Amino acid sequence: MLIPFDDHYFMKKALQEAQQAFDKGEIPVGAVVTHNNQIIAKSHNLTEQLTDVTAHAEMQAITAAANHIGGKYLRGCTLYVTLEPCQMCAGALYWSQLSRLVFAAPDEGRGYRTLGTQLHPKTKVDHGILEEEASRLLKAFFIQKRNMN
Amino acid sequence: MLIPFDDHYFMKKALQEAQQAFDKGEIPVGAVVTHNNQIIAKSHNLTEQLTDVTAHAEMQAITAAANHIGGKYLRGCTLYVTLEPCQMCAGALYWSQLSRLVFAAPDEGRGYRTLGTQLHPKTKVDHGILEEEASRLLKAFFIQKRNMN
Repeated sequence: MLIPFDDHYFMKKALQEAQQAFDKGEIPVGAVVTHNNQIIAKSHNLTEQLTDVTAHAEMQAITAAANHIGGKYLRGCTLYVTLEPCQMCAGALYWSQLSRLVFAAPDEGRGYRTLGTQLHPKTKVDHGILEEEASRLLKAFFIQKRNMN
Repeated sequence: MLIPFDDHYFMKKALQEAQQAFDKGEIPVGAVVTHNNQIIAKSHNLTEQLTDVTAHAEMQAITAAANHIGGKYLRGCTLYVTLEPCQMCAGALYWSQLSRLVFAAPDEGRGYRTLGTQLHPKTKVDHGILEEEASRLLKAFFIQKRNMN
């Protein structure tokens, strides 16, 4: 049976957002939030364009999703993000009471698991969906960046 | 010698921000950011008004201060906040490379120290300035809230 709207589908949408960040010279991380199998928020990292360290893809996605819902809690929502969230974003997800987090590539250095940041106890986590594609885009970005300097 | 612009002075300004949050029915937390002994950003918690869990006083202060500076790093800046930052805000402060954090009241439950969130290695921390006043305002808020329900 064909399942058109599965984790792979939504992570692909998050990857398209990451590509948009890449094209703007931003660290390529993208995110989407779904509710009842529909996308209610899309975003990508904009820290350089906005000169704002808080403008990670996840932070914008949380704000946009809450705006769509008309309430501050993301219960019943899934966040798809192409890179493992950092302390800040995981801390924001904690407050949001997000139901499910799915990330593509791990971040061994500054990811929330390495740094021990707590998610909300009700948040389920899956990872590894399109991991290779997400990692490849990140690596390409940093190689390009290095060659420019 | 009288020092008009000291930690006590700036924390008092943060407390005035917290009072504004209180008056709006928000958890009363306020913040100011200083640079060269001048206030460059002021904010207070607006999570209810904006229905946005990311709208903590510190997050807004970081964004506003970066906007004032025209760069995303808060090197040379001090953040005064009336309550110990949470994981999210400490994570944001990590990225900002803030030079100094001063908070008034500790948050034993959800404060960044209890939860082990990392600040930037260059961020110096002081706390306890106007702790009683900040705690009193928070307690008054939660007592009022309890009596309303």
